[in-house]
Amino acid sequence: MSGTSDVAADASVAPRTSPPTVAVDAMGGDHAPAEIVRGAVLAVRELGLRVVLVGRRPEIARLLAEENALRDVPVVHAEDSLAMHEGALASWRRPRSSAAVACRLIRRGDADALVSAGSTGGVVATSTVRLRTQPGVLRPALAVTLPTGETPTVLVDAGANADAKPEMLVQFAHLGCAYAHTAFGVERPRVGILTIGSEPGKGNKLVRRATELLAATAEESQGMDFRGNIEGHDLLARRVDVVVTDGHTGNVALKAVEGTATFAMEAFREALTSSAAAKVGAFLQRRALRELRDRLDSETYGGAALLGLNGTVVIAHGDSRAWGVARACGLAHDLAVGRIGDRIRRRVHHRPPNWLHRLAQSEER
Amino acid sequence: MSGTSDVAADASVAPRTSPPTVAVDAMGGDHAPAEIVRGAVLAVRELGLRVVLVGRRPEIARLLAEENALRDVPVVHAEDSLAMHEGALASWRRPRSSAAVACRLIRRGDADALVSAGSTGGVVATSTVRLRTQPGVLRPALAVTLPTGETPTVLVDAGANADAKPEMLVQFAHLGCAYAHTAFGVERPRVGILTIGSEPGKGNKLVRRATELLAATAEESQGMDFRGNIEGHDLLARRVDVVVTDGHTGNVALKAVEGTATFAMEAFREALTSSAAAKVGAFLQRRALRELRDRLDSETYGGAALLGLNGTVVIAHGDSRAWGVARACGLAHDLAVGRIGDRIRRRVHHRPPNWLHRLAQSEER
Repeated sequence: MSGTSDVAADASVAPRTSPPTVAVDAMGGDHAPAEIVRGAVLAVRELGLRVVLVGRRPEIARLLAEENALRDVPVVHAEDSLAMHEGALASWRRPRSSAAVACRLIRRGDADALVSAGSTGGVVATSTVRLRTQPGVLRPALAVTLPTGETPTVLVDAGANADAKPEMLVQFAHLGCAYAHTAFGVERPRVGILTIGSEPGKGNKLVRRATELLAATAEESQGMDFRGNIEGHDLLARRVDVVVTDGHTGNVALKAVEGTATFAMEAFREALTSSAAAKVGAFLQRRALRELRDRLDSETYGGAALLGLNGTVVIAHGDSRAWGVARACGLAHDLAVGRIGDRIRRRVHHRPPNWLHRLAQSEER
Repeated sequence: MSGTSDVAADASVAPRTSPPTVAVDAMGGDHAPAEIVRGAVLAVRELGLRVVLVGRRPEIARLLAEENALRDVPVVHAEDSLAMHEGALASWRRPRSSAAVACRLIRRGDADALVSAGSTGGVVATSTVRLRTQPGVLRPALAVTLPTGETPTVLVDAGANADAKPEMLVQFAHLGCAYAHTAFGVERPRVGILTIGSEPGKGNKLVRRATELLAATAEESQGMDFRGNIEGHDLLARRVDVVVTDGHTGNVALKAVEGTATFAMEAFREALTSSAAAKVGAFLQRRALRELRDRLDSETYGGAALLGLNGTVVIAHGDSRAWGVARACGLAHDLAVGRIGDRIRRRVHHRPPNWLHRLAQSEER
């Protein structure tokens, strides 16, 4: 339609030249600070990233000394930290938490991304308040990569917005496309909306209205290939590149997938050791099974990205060990290098005015 | 509180003495009528049930003759049938569909239960219109048994109500308890509400309000042990006997579990045949793996029960083969023998007036 199509706009985002700095919240996570510090060291030594650790300096310095890495990873002191059970409100009251100090580094330009394995609620609240949403973005949303193997599928929102409105779902689709483009190079991602049946018109009110909006703006969205409804059993079927849903459904679906994968692994382990013959069989399959476990292991995927803020934020699993933290740093680095913020800005903010107009109309639901 | 506690009331429901008759919709399902007819024959011969087949008589008679079962299974003629893709509206317009005729048998007292592998939307609409909801029941809900192994977990609603209100979720909890009691003998089922975090107060507005109502009525609900929030990864963890959710979230969660189980089975199959050594291993484990596949196979569980209508309705998987249909007949038989309708009536209809009063207040949300 207009000369500034999404694809063209997106293609014009040049990758950054200087390497980004990842600020790691050393105090967040079930195994903080020890595993977090070790993860940061791995990210520097094994992945060649630029990392700064944020948290209580004496503790961090001691752990770095153990790894002989005092000169590899700089430390920024933060005296406070978010507790794992703390929700949104509590985290607002902690301006000196390690997560808040890391956000300050980003705002000042001293860092480009935040990685935290702290409580999702606390990190979402802290970074939303301190980094603010990008212009035009209604709400930040959590994007996770589902363990589909070679062709990854991005699920968004995985839990930042329990109650969503149709126009938010439309933006989640654009945030997810920016992610799929940046992280996996998919120029025109296939987008599906998660619902209850495959036929058009199926689903709850939220989904039906969001589907209308996505279908109505499809011809303007050259950077998106909207495919309509997808169902729960399609999540791992690689039918789409981006799955759009509200944070409630998305969080339940993601955890159902993770829980079932764990359950199935456990059931297999039992089956493979249920008899002497089966045990011999399991021995012969060790390598294949190890690879499979890695494939189904959610930690392999680095964590959830909180999209739509002025700065890259990656939330690692709360129970992340060193390699999980390092992979989360890798993801944060890749998103910052790919300038995901710029891509989101072009997709969400610089949309044709008639699209914004339609959004406004949708408020009257 | 009052003398008519739920447990006492529930215990007083005597099992029926005469064997119930299960009306099987011969025309619904991907493999109808052949596999459905074979399933009905299995239900009669292997499970000793009383079954009547409903559908196009000539076709059914031919299939029964092939099985030498013309005298084992009576047939009631219905000239019309619901198409698999047909939704609610279309099915209302088919008063002579096999599903509608089966409902008529139940209303006349000639049958006690309906089993159909037809489209969920069509069967829900047809049976809701023709059997009507039980007194006091706001909406019928679909209950499914999750593949958790020995201790089953009931998920309700699995997809009948895409948009639910908090008071419906409260009733779904009672419907699910009646199911767990009838099908598995759990007298005081543990109930969890499916949401986004484990801490109280987490979740969307619907969940938060339903949790308030369930907690407020907990002391009157002696036949229910309300445990608060559960998350997606708890679905297969046997933490509760009944999982309550709206039909949108429930359907997505159920299909996510099924899809992930299928994906994991496939991934294992690949892993087990990826090398010569692994193949030998797989050979040694054949039996263990076959058992595991059966355990993760959703067809083992008979199907979804539509609860809250004047008559027992079981909806089998659309792709059910003969044994899936027979198991669905077994489930319908068990629910009818256990008088699930009476149990639901006592739990939902004969509740203390102050509970109904609170429900009325909740409308003002």
